[in-house]
Amino acid sequence: MASFPLAPGAAIGIIGGGQLGRMLSLAAAELGFDTVILEPERGCPAGRVAARTIAAPYDDPEALAKLAKACAVVSYEFENVPAAAVDRLAALGCEVAPGARALAVAQDRLEEKTFLNAHGAPTVAFAAASTADEAVQAVAEVGAPALMKTRREGYDGKGQRWVEHAADAAAAFQALGGVPVIVEAACPFVRELSVIAARGRDGATAVYPLAENHHEGGILRRSIAPAGVAKATADQAERIAARVLGGLDYVGVVGIELFELADGALLVNEFAPRVHNTGHWTQDGCEVSQFEQHIRAIAGWPLGPTHAIVRVEMLNLLGEEVHGWARLAAEPESRVHLYGKREAKAGRKMGHVNRMRPL
Amino acid sequence: MASFPLAPGAAIGIIGGGQLGRMLSLAAAELGFDTVILEPERGCPAGRVAARTIAAPYDDPEALAKLAKACAVVSYEFENVPAAAVDRLAALGCEVAPGARALAVAQDRLEEKTFLNAHGAPTVAFAAASTADEAVQAVAEVGAPALMKTRREGYDGKGQRWVEHAADAAAAFQALGGVPVIVEAACPFVRELSVIAARGRDGATAVYPLAENHHEGGILRRSIAPAGVAKATADQAERIAARVLGGLDYVGVVGIELFELADGALLVNEFAPRVHNTGHWTQDGCEVSQFEQHIRAIAGWPLGPTHAIVRVEMLNLLGEEVHGWARLAAEPESRVHLYGKREAKAGRKMGHVNRMRPL
Repeated sequence: MASFPLAPGAAIGIIGGGQLGRMLSLAAAELGFDTVILEPERGCPAGRVAARTIAAPYDDPEALAKLAKACAVVSYEFENVPAAAVDRLAALGCEVAPGARALAVAQDRLEEKTFLNAHGAPTVAFAAASTADEAVQAVAEVGAPALMKTRREGYDGKGQRWVEHAADAAAAFQALGGVPVIVEAACPFVRELSVIAARGRDGATAVYPLAENHHEGGILRRSIAPAGVAKATADQAERIAARVLGGLDYVGVVGIELFELADGALLVNEFAPRVHNTGHWTQDGCEVSQFEQHIRAIAGWPLGPTHAIVRVEMLNLLGEEVHGWARLAAEPESRVHLYGKREAKAGRKMGHVNRMRPL
Repeated sequence: MASFPLAPGAAIGIIGGGQLGRMLSLAAAELGFDTVILEPERGCPAGRVAARTIAAPYDDPEALAKLAKACAVVSYEFENVPAAAVDRLAALGCEVAPGARALAVAQDRLEEKTFLNAHGAPTVAFAAASTADEAVQAVAEVGAPALMKTRREGYDGKGQRWVEHAADAAAAFQALGGVPVIVEAACPFVRELSVIAARGRDGATAVYPLAENHHEGGILRRSIAPAGVAKATADQAERIAARVLGGLDYVGVVGIELFELADGALLVNEFAPRVHNTGHWTQDGCEVSQFEQHIRAIAGWPLGPTHAIVRVEMLNLLGEEVHGWARLAAEPESRVHLYGKREAKAGRKMGHVNRMRPL
């Protein structure tokens, strides 16, 4: 078993080899750690900056055994890590952070909202459905229009659809594949915000200033942070973060998506048990980025400061937009972060740029 | 031949796999580049964050051919790269930056000082010697006490010794191995400063604020930047940097070590054609670090901003000092940078810490 705090030189495992794994690896290296990436895709973004890549499916038992043997702690860059993989690592005596409970809650939208409400983190009204009839009932219960989402999987707007009238609920349920769903009341939000927070192995927490987020077609386009918010709103975000982190006995960084209502009150949309796209601004806006913070937390190091040193407008570079790198590189106020992905598919997150603004 | 500016996804070669290569690799990755390290030592610090390592001697012809084939441009992390290696890369049509002339001048202390004076960058008085008799003559010429240094090799205070009296010159010459030396007049400096500067492929230059440096036993212990200096001193440093960069038709980052005299005037001690230990403060003190700046320059990207956003005290962690990581990690004002070296030998640079101070 690993002994915490982890000494530099230890290896940290990361399941998933995309941009989040890449930026985690870079942050880990600054602290003297090696990283080992588990990812089926060869030449993945994270693997090209890691000490080692194990090229295998996420649930491959032999690969997981190698990962457990090589690493003092294992983390992940996406919340849909197969539960069996985490169980396997645990059975091998390998520390996984954030833990299995955080992952299980985050993987099921019904469990997630139930957990949030139980811990005093308010959400929209919701109801679950496993059949078409239940789906009709659920929409009637929360009121149309409502948002129907598969309980599991789905990201960037995938696996969900709006139901304008209760009568359309059965068709929507079938269109989503006839799998268990959650139906959420429409939220009259005025703004989408998010809060990135961390909890260390000692239970200490650290919360970054709120980000204001703008999506297009279900994909994050732009974040501005620190967002201009009333003190009461910022305080509520801190309370929500503390409840989520404490309620899950969490270790690591969490990204919590929020709806701001007209009166400044917040509802939780969802949380991701990992570093988060709306926290990329911290790379240039804070002394310790969300990536270093996550590594600090899972390694049992003390958390770093989270105050903003500058205001940042973070812009995702999607698909072909990455070909604008030369123009962006010439902007003195812009810091360019590119992920080394080979193919600029439509909507694919290829990089981001942090534009500095006065605080 | 490579076409500049290099597009993200290109590979950048780095000769040398130590901490400077490591930090260059991390910076290159943020801009979407892969790095390929040439280094005989397996498991070297840079190799653990690079896309590929070629484990071979620096002058191995086959290894150099592989490097040239894989990379759009090759740079290096130390100035004692064998000239034959650079010639071989050039013969293969591989772009090397900084170029062969910068390297040749920097490798020979006599050529270096001759170049500096010829380009209006003042140094202490000096004289060359290739025999014991010439050494005596040289010390007589510049006046004792004088500092005798081998013309080639030597770093961190190695390969040099003080000559208190002209009569000791022959013995000092023999003690240094009987190789060609340069004898330098003692410099009545009040402070050691350095300036980190860069020149792009378009000839544009960018100069960071001066750092004040403190050595112990010939090894850098501490830098404070921006150093408090008179405007005339800062202006002279900028002029010196411009002359060095322009005179060598330089591409990349250079580190120039300076002596400040009582009246604020500067003499050049030496320059290193690479990122420099006294520039590590830029990682946390500037928007674009010296490492990113070097990658930008050699990739033909526009240079980034060089102004300080905070004052930094950079402290090298030598040998066993690295074992103080837990205490340093707990200091909110300290950013820890560790190199992943396995063995904490005495005097070995294991990492550094940047402590934030108000500007």
